[in-house]
Amino acid sequence: MTTDGGRPGEAEGSSPALSDRRDERPRSREPQPREQLSRVPGPVSGGASFQEMWRELAPVGRHRETGGYRRYAWTPADADCRAWFRQQAEARGLTYEADRNGNQWAWLGDPTAGDAVVTGSHLDSVPDGGAFDGPLGVVSSFAALDELLARGARFARPLALVNFGDEEGARFGLACVGSRLTSGQLTVEQAHRLTDAEGITLPRAMEAAGYDPDALGADPERLGRIGAFVELHVEQGRALDLSGDRVGLASAIWPHGRWRFDFRGEANHAGTTRLEDRRDPMLSYAETVLAARREAELAGAVATFGKISVEPNGVNAIPSLVRGWLDSRAADQVTLDQVVGGVEKAARAYAEAHGIDLDVVRESFTPVVEFDHALRDELTRILGAAAAGGDGAGGDDGGLRVPVLGTGAGHDAGILSSSIPTAMLFVRNPTGVSHSPAEFAAEDDCVAGVLALADALEGLACR
Amino acid sequence: MTTDGGRPGEAEGSSPALSDRRDERPRSREPQPREQLSRVPGPVSGGASFQEMWRELAPVGRHRETGGYRRYAWTPADADCRAWFRQQAEARGLTYEADRNGNQWAWLGDPTAGDAVVTGSHLDSVPDGGAFDGPLGVVSSFAALDELLARGARFARPLALVNFGDEEGARFGLACVGSRLTSGQLTVEQAHRLTDAEGITLPRAMEAAGYDPDALGADPERLGRIGAFVELHVEQGRALDLSGDRVGLASAIWPHGRWRFDFRGEANHAGTTRLEDRRDPMLSYAETVLAARREAELAGAVATFGKISVEPNGVNAIPSLVRGWLDSRAADQVTLDQVVGGVEKAARAYAEAHGIDLDVVRESFTPVVEFDHALRDELTRILGAAAAGGDGAGGDDGGLRVPVLGTGAGHDAGILSSSIPTAMLFVRNPTGVSHSPAEFAAEDDCVAGVLALADALEGLACR
Repeated sequence: MTTDGGRPGEAEGSSPALSDRRDERPRSREPQPREQLSRVPGPVSGGASFQEMWRELAPVGRHRETGGYRRYAWTPADADCRAWFRQQAEARGLTYEADRNGNQWAWLGDPTAGDAVVTGSHLDSVPDGGAFDGPLGVVSSFAALDELLARGARFARPLALVNFGDEEGARFGLACVGSRLTSGQLTVEQAHRLTDAEGITLPRAMEAAGYDPDALGADPERLGRIGAFVELHVEQGRALDLSGDRVGLASAIWPHGRWRFDFRGEANHAGTTRLEDRRDPMLSYAETVLAARREAELAGAVATFGKISVEPNGVNAIPSLVRGWLDSRAADQVTLDQVVGGVEKAARAYAEAHGIDLDVVRESFTPVVEFDHALRDELTRILGAAAAGGDGAGGDDGGLRVPVLGTGAGHDAGILSSSIPTAMLFVRNPTGVSHSPAEFAAEDDCVAGVLALADALEGLACR
Repeated sequence: MTTDGGRPGEAEGSSPALSDRRDERPRSREPQPREQLSRVPGPVSGGASFQEMWRELAPVGRHRETGGYRRYAWTPADADCRAWFRQQAEARGLTYEADRNGNQWAWLGDPTAGDAVVTGSHLDSVPDGGAFDGPLGVVSSFAALDELLARGARFARPLALVNFGDEEGARFGLACVGSRLTSGQLTVEQAHRLTDAEGITLPRAMEAAGYDPDALGADPERLGRIGAFVELHVEQGRALDLSGDRVGLASAIWPHGRWRFDFRGEANHAGTTRLEDRRDPMLSYAETVLAARREAELAGAVATFGKISVEPNGVNAIPSLVRGWLDSRAADQVTLDQVVGGVEKAARAYAEAHGIDLDVVRESFTPVVEFDHALRDELTRILGAAAAGGDGAGGDDGGLRVPVLGTGAGHDAGILSSSIPTAMLFVRNPTGVSHSPAEFAAEDDCVAGVLALADALEGLACR
């Protein structure tokens, strides 16, 4: 089914079905835009629009000392990001909704008409994260819409822009909470048990932010409206930099998981306990860190110990417990099993040699996600044709290349791919650095991403 | 100069000099005994006295779940320990004093007469520490006095029992604060800057506990009263267990120090960053942990990484910073230099190989402490003679052995040894475990320690 979504400003009046807003449950404390945009969006290019929005969002939640972002779910910084999203939507006359799981939507055309094309990403961050992971996709969505309007595009399908809640999981330890809830991959009971480092549960945090935690739950009706979801994201690696391309398409998200290694020894005095009387779990941990690197190198995968917790963690105390978390990802399941199996086997041998008890717990696991082949093929065709027209989405040499690449990172697009056709666009990251204040993408490349996203949306949604 | 310390109960009346209590500055909130002891101490054996006091003190500051002790300086648990000390002193009619640095003293005889024999230890603990490290020395001091009184001993020198404040440094990060201040090894300015993990300064903490932080400072007059200090302590290793002896004498405290290793790399996404693009400081840290063990083994020393701090410490983030603390100790300075130099050299090579910046900072250092040879020889003679009399201070076979052993742990006796003649007695620790809830000494061995301490005090202080 297709429908004419109309022009901005028409959406509110032309959407009678929106009066039946059962899932919206408007909250009195739902973030309000703090001020009206001074400009009334007109026919402005996606590039100019992008630059203005990027500058506007840049200071929100940025830490004064680290320069990194601390936009954690349901905090004041998050509320500021949400108010910004709503403001952008309303300034364009789009129909704004916050769904039952706290995801934000901005609709052009009838949200209930079905077969909508949706684009967006998230605005929250990891601790001291970069400016691009998430916000690039959201800002580019608005900019791509502006670009299409400036081109005079006429829409044949409804279009929606989305900001998914709590994608990074920085606060409650689980990634993609908003999309997992909506797609039914996280139950209400599980979500209600999520707790942050200060003991605040997700329901209490949502309530404090003006949302109704009793409304949480799967939302098949909302997913049923969507015909295709395209998420634009900064690349979190150097594949595009190495191939010399500005923009790429995702093939798949590698299978990945987290394993907790608990090495338990015996607390003792570091100054007086003979080496031969020690059961020091730090030694087994250290050996296992190095084993993980070796196994990953052998397999062409990645394996990282980036988080550790030590008891009692005293300078003059041999630890009783060293708890390390392994994050590992590989292009396929067999390789991942090989890496993690190898690390665990090595860890058990080290632990036994030092008299250490070892428990290994798989805390989370996501199987390989293959993005929808038909949608990817269609986007390859659309972007190839547009690049031939010379709008810069292709390689540095102006050619047709839109390479297809895998990624080790999880995304809302990966969560939704089991329910609806999804695709991802990546924008070149010259250093590959991500989840760090040093995360960077050149403005030219960001604008190339905006134009590629506009091309994709035009090809999918317009007459 | 010697003096007759008199019998308990006579002390208060027989010490006119005590009316000049300039250093005492009685505080209204100085912990008061919570109740009178039901028994009036009479001629009770040191063993029986020890058992009763040990049971009384055991529950104070013990954590319900870990079974370990959390008696940190100037906390309510510490105040309970202090009230207990005062109660024991007053129940025996000893003259109680809290000095300007918060150390507690219980005098038999004239405190100002000079050439006093002093014994004691500390009552505070490391986090989740054991019952013996510290309290064994304090409880044994009272029990040894009881034993001497039961033996009908007549004192020729004043005797004092002492509880030094904040020996473990668990709260403010510096060990032996009470004895360092008194001996002038810690200045008032340095002490005033000490801050706990919650940002509370030492002066504020003392004030909250009813002490006057403005009174802090060196106390040469008090040290000048002391002719010999003997500290009894549970052994924090297995030397006595391996030699089959109940009690030993200390030769020296090994030189020891703490070095902070800051490995700085680059924060990045653990899922998407190619291994070859990483600057992961956890790898250099892990290699350095293993190098420390190798260097210590080679040198017959100890080296431990027991404390770590990681930024950002996220499961899916390559760390930007791994900070590890090395604790190392050896029998002599040359060996210690060799170990720490070897670890640092290895760490620099590892860091360079991984593109990691490394800073190494020596946070604290204590040179070797040789206990007073004349005092040790005298105690060897006294204890050897007593063991020949068969009171059980010697070996399992009832022989004369009182082995002399070094130790890697710091003690108040080590701090005071630069000002006054000091000695230490160790009581057998069958597992060597210390600074842990599992720390243990058999009651028979503890009683042997009490009797050895009584013998030592009798030999030094009695007619």
